[in-house]
Amino acid sequence: MKNQPLGGNDMPRFAGPGTMMRLPSADNAAGLNACFVGVPMDIGASNRPGTRFGPKQIRAESVMLRPYNMWTKAAPFDSIQVADIGDVPINTFDLKDSVKRITGFYDDVLTHDVIPLSLGGDHTMTLPILRSMAKKHGPVGLIHVDAHADINEHMFGEEIAHGTPFRRAWEEKLINPERTYQIGLRGTGYTAEDFDWARDKGFSVTQAEELWHRSAAPLMAKIKAALGDDPVYLSFDIDALDPAFAPGTGTQEIGGLTTIQALEIIRGCRGLNIVGCDLVEVSPPYDPQGSTALVAANLLFEMLCVLPGVAYRS
Amino acid sequence: MKNQPLGGNDMPRFAGPGTMMRLPSADNAAGLNACFVGVPMDIGASNRPGTRFGPKQIRAESVMLRPYNMWTKAAPFDSIQVADIGDVPINTFDLKDSVKRITGFYDDVLTHDVIPLSLGGDHTMTLPILRSMAKKHGPVGLIHVDAHADINEHMFGEEIAHGTPFRRAWEEKLINPERTYQIGLRGTGYTAEDFDWARDKGFSVTQAEELWHRSAAPLMAKIKAALGDDPVYLSFDIDALDPAFAPGTGTQEIGGLTTIQALEIIRGCRGLNIVGCDLVEVSPPYDPQGSTALVAANLLFEMLCVLPGVAYRS
Amino acid sequence: MKNQPLGGNDMPRFAGPGTMMRLPSADNAAGLNACFVGVPMDIGASNRPGTRFGPKQIRAESVMLRPYNMWTKAAPFDSIQVADIGDVPINTFDLKDSVKRITGFYDDVLTHDVIPLSLGGDHTMTLPILRSMAKKHGPVGLIHVDAHADINEHMFGEEIAHGTPFRRAWEEKLINPERTYQIGLRGTGYTAEDFDWARDKGFSVTQAEELWHRSAAPLMAKIKAALGDDPVYLSFDIDALDPAFAPGTGTQEIGGLTTIQALEIIRGCRGLNIVGCDLVEVSPPYDPQGSTALVAANLLFEMLCVLPGVAYRS
Amino acid sequence: MKNQPLGGNDMPRFAGPGTMMRLPSADNAAGLNACFVGVPMDIGASNRPGTRFGPKQIRAESVMLRPYNMWTKAAPFDSIQVADIGDVPINTFDLKDSVKRITGFYDDVLTHDVIPLSLGGDHTMTLPILRSMAKKHGPVGLIHVDAHADINEHMFGEEIAHGTPFRRAWEEKLINPERTYQIGLRGTGYTAEDFDWARDKGFSVTQAEELWHRSAAPLMAKIKAALGDDPVYLSFDIDALDPAFAPGTGTQEIGGLTTIQALEIIRGCRGLNIVGCDLVEVSPPYDPQGSTALVAANLLFEMLCVLPGVAYRS
Amino acid sequence: MKNQPLGGNDMPRFAGPGTMMRLPSADNAAGLNACFVGVPMDIGASNRPGTRFGPKQIRAESVMLRPYNMWTKAAPFDSIQVADIGDVPINTFDLKDSVKRITGFYDDVLTHDVIPLSLGGDHTMTLPILRSMAKKHGPVGLIHVDAHADINEHMFGEEIAHGTPFRRAWEEKLINPERTYQIGLRGTGYTAEDFDWARDKGFSVTQAEELWHRSAAPLMAKIKAALGDDPVYLSFDIDALDPAFAPGTGTQEIGGLTTIQALEIIRGCRGLNIVGCDLVEVSPPYDPQGSTALVAANLLFEMLCVLPGVAYRS
Amino acid sequence: MKNQPLGGNDMPRFAGPGTMMRLPSADNAAGLNACFVGVPMDIGASNRPGTRFGPKQIRAESVMLRPYNMWTKAAPFDSIQVADIGDVPINTFDLKDSVKRITGFYDDVLTHDVIPLSLGGDHTMTLPILRSMAKKHGPVGLIHVDAHADINEHMFGEEIAHGTPFRRAWEEKLINPERTYQIGLRGTGYTAEDFDWARDKGFSVTQAEELWHRSAAPLMAKIKAALGDDPVYLSFDIDALDPAFAPGTGTQEIGGLTTIQALEIIRGCRGLNIVGCDLVEVSPPYDPQGSTALVAANLLFEMLCVLPGVAYRS
Repeated sequence: MKNQPLGGNDMPRFAGPGTMMRLPSADNAAGLNACFVGVPMDIGASNRPGTRFGPKQIRAESVMLRPYNMWTKAAPFDSIQVADIGDVPINTFDLKDSVKRITGFYDDVLTHDVIPLSLGGDHTMTLPILRSMAKKHGPVGLIHVDAHADINEHMFGEEIAHGTPFRRAWEEKLINPERTYQIGLRGTGYTAEDFDWARDKGFSVTQAEELWHRSAAPLMAKIKAALGDDPVYLSFDIDALDPAFAPGTGTQEIGGLTTIQALEIIRGCRGLNIVGCDLVEVSPPYDPQGSTALVAANLLFEMLCVLPGVAYRS
Repeated sequence: MKNQPLGGNDMPRFAGPGTMMRLPSADNAAGLNACFVGVPMDIGASNRPGTRFGPKQIRAESVMLRPYNMWTKAAPFDSIQVADIGDVPINTFDLKDSVKRITGFYDDVLTHDVIPLSLGGDHTMTLPILRSMAKKHGPVGLIHVDAHADINEHMFGEEIAHGTPFRRAWEEKLINPERTYQIGLRGTGYTAEDFDWARDKGFSVTQAEELWHRSAAPLMAKIKAALGDDPVYLSFDIDALDPAFAPGTGTQEIGGLTTIQALEIIRGCRGLNIVGCDLVEVSPPYDPQGSTALVAANLLFEMLCVLPGVAYRS
Repeated sequence: MKNQPLGGNDMPRFAGPGTMMRLPSADNAAGLNACFVGVPMDIGASNRPGTRFGPKQIRAESVMLRPYNMWTKAAPFDSIQVADIGDVPINTFDLKDSVKRITGFYDDVLTHDVIPLSLGGDHTMTLPILRSMAKKHGPVGLIHVDAHADINEHMFGEEIAHGTPFRRAWEEKLINPERTYQIGLRGTGYTAEDFDWARDKGFSVTQAEELWHRSAAPLMAKIKAALGDDPVYLSFDIDALDPAFAPGTGTQEIGGLTTIQALEIIRGCRGLNIVGCDLVEVSPPYDPQGSTALVAANLLFEMLCVLPGVAYRS
Repeated sequence: MKNQPLGGNDMPRFAGPGTMMRLPSADNAAGLNACFVGVPMDIGASNRPGTRFGPKQIRAESVMLRPYNMWTKAAPFDSIQVADIGDVPINTFDLKDSVKRITGFYDDVLTHDVIPLSLGGDHTMTLPILRSMAKKHGPVGLIHVDAHADINEHMFGEEIAHGTPFRRAWEEKLINPERTYQIGLRGTGYTAEDFDWARDKGFSVTQAEELWHRSAAPLMAKIKAALGDDPVYLSFDIDALDPAFAPGTGTQEIGGLTTIQALEIIRGCRGLNIVGCDLVEVSPPYDPQGSTALVAANLLFEMLCVLPGVAYRS
Repeated sequence: MKNQPLGGNDMPRFAGPGTMMRLPSADNAAGLNACFVGVPMDIGASNRPGTRFGPKQIRAESVMLRPYNMWTKAAPFDSIQVADIGDVPINTFDLKDSVKRITGFYDDVLTHDVIPLSLGGDHTMTLPILRSMAKKHGPVGLIHVDAHADINEHMFGEEIAHGTPFRRAWEEKLINPERTYQIGLRGTGYTAEDFDWARDKGFSVTQAEELWHRSAAPLMAKIKAALGDDPVYLSFDIDALDPAFAPGTGTQEIGGLTTIQALEIIRGCRGLNIVGCDLVEVSPPYDPQGSTALVAANLLFEMLCVLPGVAYRS
Repeated sequence: MKNQPLGGNDMPRFAGPGTMMRLPSADNAAGLNACFVGVPMDIGASNRPGTRFGPKQIRAESVMLRPYNMWTKAAPFDSIQVADIGDVPINTFDLKDSVKRITGFYDDVLTHDVIPLSLGGDHTMTLPILRSMAKKHGPVGLIHVDAHADINEHMFGEEIAHGTPFRRAWEEKLINPERTYQIGLRGTGYTAEDFDWARDKGFSVTQAEELWHRSAAPLMAKIKAALGDDPVYLSFDIDALDPAFAPGTGTQEIGGLTTIQALEIIRGCRGLNIVGCDLVEVSPPYDPQGSTALVAANLLFEMLCVLPGVAYRS
């Protein structure tokens, strides 16, 4: 039998191991089909810090998750082997060195045939993960759900920060711009034309306003049709959600997505050839009751449910 | 004149008695048409505790409630006699004994011709209340609004806990399964078929996903047509709401109902033969600003507004 | 070049001056087209206090605002001169004297050709501001977004309080009732006919229920058509929003507007002859992570974006 | 038998009535030897508000109090009749009117032979209480424990505010300056000579620094010897305590008293002819876990224990 | 080399495993000299709940602990083998069954030659632990640091609850009353003679007042001399501390011990034949910043430092 | 007349400018005798982040400070010119670059004859400040109040971090080791001999335990005698205080100093030739009510009061 989350009938939910979903931990990704990884980093954040505690808090709140998805009938632990392989030992005193360490870690993970689901951590982390992804898969498709485009040329003169990863990823050809979808962008910018850079490069940009008062399912149907079987990476910044649904993050923007839309987006990825996922920017110091971490834990479980190879009950 | 809530022009809202809506208190239900009762219990909860403080906090936040409903024009205190009859003295060291004590308390309440509105308290409490209800009314219809079906066979080997009341209620024939409506169910489960047990027994189950992006009014119209004049009990678990609207509870599930849908559901009960209501699972330690208790206080007032005999202004 | 907000590439967002949007401060309104003003008052509040800290907290959270509106393409700092002129020195020990002081302050502001955007503060403040406005403009049109009508005859026997300003404004002919729009009203009242007073006087009242599940844009189109070029004042009580979106306020009512609807309402004012705006009732002691203040800061920026004379990028 | 607090073996501590110590409530002071009264006011506060919720929160936290004092062996409910007579209906929109209403309320209370213990509320309230006290007893002795002298000539030009009551009390001859003891004063002032005014009038001033690292018992022994049998009023501002012990208040000063010293001060009053007591300036919005209210509830109980007529077990 | 805590130079403190001090976990106590055990229980608590999360939060805050004690020079990991063996799977729906399960768990632990350090959990847990201890060691000496004597005959009619363990332990001859020391007792009681029961049985009781303004070292010297080499159990209720030092607990009493005195008490146990320790009653829902859990983690480390066999650097 | 703090009789304390003590701001240090500077940095922190918001929050809480010290009679604004010169624009994405920027900023400040009082920020900042100090004054004396020695060789392999500044300062001869005093050190270490390095170099180390239960005044008298007129820098880490007094910081250690001892330490510096001061490691996300920032603001004011040239009232 595959690894199973420790159930609430064996150990009360408020106790037991501190791993994601109370799954077994593993030293590395050998033998796994999917693995949870923490990237405890916030030194790439421009406003509020705290995402260094994101992985720990997401795991803490994941205790509520039971193994089956009651709507989609996904049964991931019926068919794939999953474990929590712990945290990347970043160097919290040096962002550039941390970025290197993350790539090194994921290079090692990807020597195995495994799909990593990463618990952030500030969004800077997606750049070094994509560097590893591209080494293995070539330029990947990208579904990027976020309030911000994260395509700044520089931040405070720096090339590496949580507002620049997708600019760098495009420059380094880690992503295929024609297969890049940005969803949920909104708010204020340094110029009114900020998002045009992405559109010029071929990204598909859906601003939050385009999704107001409606389901995200039709959008996902279009994206799915376009992406086909090509490898795709899913990067979900929790600030894509409206602050009412995810207040525990560092750079909130109002008028955002609902968790219902977030579920539609992730469930809409079923059938895609997902090669990796992340959920970033949960900042526990601004989430005292753990509500935002709970949303994140659920979204990560929903990502797990749409990975290739996951069984579904009828 | 009937009992009236103490008004803000007589005593500032931040002062005065600690009763529900600052209504008069009463030692028992004699002479009342409706009564508020607290069930200060959390020892049936499987994850976060704290609902023991629910009744106290709901009452504290109810100070904002004025006597008239501005949309429905309900004027409950024009026509029915209402008071707060205090708390059930549960035995916090023994769940099974507490369940017995609750039935004893409600048996006594129901010697009067009164409709109790109960402030919870974890959801275990609905079982002993239904035991009293069934003694008086026979198997009742049930409108059960919740994120969870609460139909587990056992929890940690126990028959009595906050995840089992409606299984027990069905076994004990306290509810009429053909007249049982579960609304808002979602999230993860121990098997993907968990809700099938209820459907097999005849319950009507509406998962949260079926209500996404739409009004709950049409659903309620159907339920109302089906229930007719038969006695019906309304049990509302605050976790039916999305955590954005009701974060202060112990077993949150994302993708839930809005408070607007909650209002539609309760207002949609107008005309039913309601014999009792409860609002459960508010956990003040996870509700530091009292927002969830405020939602609960409002929903209890809306329940009061749809009780049989309530006057409406034109 | 016009005044610009201090940018995050010059000074990290978590540092720098404590002014609105980190704009330059000014001693008075001379030479400005628009100005931010704080009214640090809560002694007119009937339930929870704390709005005295509203202006300070809204400014603190406004650091996230960049100068351009990514959806509407508004570029206010391209074309108009804006500064933060500080706080009105109210007398916190005497509400009636504070009301006089506020009128004195705004009389002085309005000797200049400037549009004040006021950061509240409890809603009592809108009465003295309207007194100044009417001296300059005559009775103004009013768009009043709020959970409450604020048209009480008295509160606790007093004429001046946060629940009476628009009754007084009508009595004093500060507003044109035929051009007065109240949006978002809901909840409970002292009589079920409370809102009829306003309708009798000619106000247009849109209760929150009328906006459930739909966009506010059509309503705004109608209002805009009706108001034409006449001077109009926009008063936005943050409790118009549902508590899920704006918990940090003193007299919450459930079933309220979404921030999306709030954005639609304000963006729908583009083209009106706005002569002043306020955002009131943010109470920081009930907003520990600053989420409500952040919403308020955004809404004030959106108000700035729709002022006459603001440039738009194409 | 005298009134007794409702015990934890009859009703769990987290439930039951919202009165002080869960004592019976009473409509007025007839037949009582001592009574608890709430003064829900904060409009006299110069910095942080919130003390309007002080009486409610002190009562909520008082549930932990059992009837006997384990150190002093005081057994107040063995010998005196005590009840909670509720709150003074202040006019929260007018400080000056509220002051009049408070005097009116206490004038009525003092028609009975009862000692009121008042739950504040900002310190302004002590002036109107002393006005009633002086009508009955003439100028009283005063033990005033506080971080601040509260002897300002004016605050913001006003005679009535929470920083002026003891200046006014001296002017109006409500207190006997030769029998006035101020304990715990410290911090910063508008002039370095601020406390000299009090000393010039004959007050005994003990600055906090004089009590650092030592017991307050010797000081109390001296005060007791000096006061003899004359009527004395005890006014305790919770900010006399160091913020570590009482963070939930509006105008904190560091370097303050410990709760141990507070207990020594109050216990040191045993044997005095106390005619009234108050505990003021608890601000619940700044006390989210209720710790400061718990300290206040305990200090009020300790005050009750040293009232004339209280029995002691041997 | 013995097990070592994971150091901050290998993995940042905000990451890594969720075990106590980030030590290796173990499935059972085989081969260990000391072990940390969690007892995630709060259903024995009479007022505030939440200690079910105590073990998890103490572990979370223990990340700050480095392996050496800078004052005493204790170097526990130089000489003894220590691991975290996880949590006791209590039955959260049945207190009496949980008590049985705890004894079963400790019976198993004590088949090994190991000293358990237990992370609570409410104080009920000490009774079943003492039952296991007495089976192995006979009646043990007891150092019981607490605000409360926990020697009630019954609570709400129940024999088992967090206020009764030491009455039961005496009745069952689990502890040697002549070698039982209670330290820190204070507050209010159901009778003024409550502590006399303990003194009558031979317990040495030191009330908190006896330790005010002084070091606890002399007391410990006396206790140590009396206890000699006999087996002794140390039970430390975090509410022994004043609420200023440990606010995150359920039944606070003011006027308590300082953390300095707590350190003196535990360090004063060096040289005793300690056979087990616990630290109980940390309630994370009332400890939002984790300060109380941090105190608890430190006190548990200090307990580890005084176990028999621990090496000291010179 | 010198710059004065804006008083509470001119503008309520909850309003007005966001500068330290509501003093005038200045663009640079020209013409000033002392200046407040913010260093909004946390990227040198090893555990909890958040000190980037320290300067902002300390300023916010400083509104309670009036211009005169009631115990020492210091009257700084009578005799010296003081202003707030704002924040150092650190590069939050690069710690090493930030360190350079800080030195650059202070080099510029020190071209003027001014004493900077710095608001932190993590303790890394003291190294670049000392680099500027040493350029002007040569190796300075140092009074370093802290829970930690901050003399690590490396942290995670890095030379620059908040645990290394005084090792680097010694290596670079920025401080005179014979005139270096470390006060308050405690807790756990990587080796039991960690503090020996400092003692070997000539530092005077006073561990917290040496100050338990006693005044710090005698220690300061000794230090003052030893330091004479030589230039001395005062660096105060808020975690020197016990967490009960200063919970809002990132690396708490129990058993620490009281605020009374902190006041004794700073007041004991009167007469020294202080050339600079800092107050570091206040982390607002862990200080939701601002209590720790309030302590910090007071300590900074007390530092101001002991600067050379400050007048004292008699």
